[in-house]
Amino acid sequence: MEKNKPLILVTNDDGVHAKGIHALVEMVKPFGEVVVVAPLHGNSGMAHAITVKVPIRYKKLKEEENVTIYGCNGTPVDSVKLAMSEIVHRKPDLIVSGINHGSNASVSIVYSGTMGAVIEGCIYGIPSIGFSHLDYSSNADFTAAIQYGKKIVENTLINGLPESTCLNVNFPPVAQDEIKGVKICRQAKGVWKEEFEKRIDPRNSEYFWLTGYFENAENGSTDTDEWALGNNYISIVPIKIDFTAYDKMDFFKQWKYEI
Amino acid sequence: MEKNKPLILVTNDDGVHAKGIHALVEMVKPFGEVVVVAPLHGNSGMAHAITVKVPIRYKKLKEEENVTIYGCNGTPVDSVKLAMSEIVHRKPDLIVSGINHGSNASVSIVYSGTMGAVIEGCIYGIPSIGFSHLDYSSNADFTAAIQYGKKIVENTLINGLPESTCLNVNFPPVAQDEIKGVKICRQAKGVWKEEFEKRIDPRNSEYFWLTGYFENAENGSTDTDEWALGNNYISIVPIKIDFTAYDKMDFFKQWKYEI
Repeated sequence: MEKNKPLILVTNDDGVHAKGIHALVEMVKPFGEVVVVAPLHGNSGMAHAITVKVPIRYKKLKEEENVTIYGCNGTPVDSVKLAMSEIVHRKPDLIVSGINHGSNASVSIVYSGTMGAVIEGCIYGIPSIGFSHLDYSSNADFTAAIQYGKKIVENTLINGLPESTCLNVNFPPVAQDEIKGVKICRQAKGVWKEEFEKRIDPRNSEYFWLTGYFENAENGSTDTDEWALGNNYISIVPIKIDFTAYDKMDFFKQWKYEI
Repeated sequence: MEKNKPLILVTNDDGVHAKGIHALVEMVKPFGEVVVVAPLHGNSGMAHAITVKVPIRYKKLKEEENVTIYGCNGTPVDSVKLAMSEIVHRKPDLIVSGINHGSNASVSIVYSGTMGAVIEGCIYGIPSIGFSHLDYSSNADFTAAIQYGKKIVENTLINGLPESTCLNVNFPPVAQDEIKGVKICRQAKGVWKEEFEKRIDPRNSEYFWLTGYFENAENGSTDTDEWALGNNYISIVPIKIDFTAYDKMDFFKQWKYEI
């Protein structure tokens, strides 16, 4: 690898063969040496999970000018750890994850393998960005996402990201000429509802599929990612990895803990 | 279930048969009707993962006065969702998770299935507390943890928790008479180092075990959970579920995003 070119690590949770990760490679390829390390199979909903019960293996799938692609049997977070420890052997200048087929706005960030990888990069002090597209189709159109993503990557390589801060970027499911621009947002409040579908198997036992729909719990606030996306803006939420509720510490200091 | 008694949902990531979850049942039993829904097998490192590729099943393992125990094939987060949707059919008054065999202080919170379940409860507006003991032994002594935990649970049932705030409680690995008290802390900065152990299988292929050690990145600050635990205090970190880095929003508003 050339020393002067930024080293850009690419991963995702939809798996190394998803259309979205190839769109992401296209987005970042102009900016440096690209190494892809991603799960061989889909890892949606794997959040920040790491693999501790089975060993991890990886293999090189493809090597061409400026882009080398590896697949592994681990999670997105495993992929980031494996890449840094065993594959690139130096700190990447940028980690990008996605482009996810589906939203990671609002609380979906906590379930997202895409964002798990981003938060992992951030813990290691590497500028890290997650990209997600509100189109779940395996054949989603990433044209606009690639164009706007390039601007975000360019800004990040020039300016860096503030310490312990990463980005959660979501694209609305509309054509490029309908996108109104980019909004810096806060994470909307919301929950998932009606989450299980009960079925009966051929041996007459109950089983459940996790399912459900997202419900926005905001009352029309225009500063959230959900509002931005619903109004055809690209949302960027700066995310911190210190989860301490500093403003609540005094509340708990008043409790009595003596036994 | 009696209507007047608090309904307390108990889960963990070490599995329903771990010693720690039985210690947790002992801790909360005096305060209400206890329902345990937990993974049948160990789910350490599963973070906030949800199960989407295989169906989820559960079974009742034990029923006695005030305590009913269920096991499921899902993750800790699945256990919380399943409990609320299919088992207790009403909002629990409190969710407790643990007692984890091992630390969930500092950044370990992001990998922790124990804390995944707690954050899930918090998203649904339920007071939720994670308890972890810095003793990884399957036969760890939870005597002091139970006593101090009772005070924390009592305070929570009386005062509630602030909106969108949950608790990450860690116990130092010392006997009860060596514990100096309880400290309200912030999450220490830190990372995991040297994370893979390479081996060769009988067919001469490489494989990797995820391993490594935690490295505290703080310079002697006395307000962190790591400091408290290293000095024989019980640490309580109030955790928020809005990860937005509000103080960084202006930085990103200055970037140019036009394509």
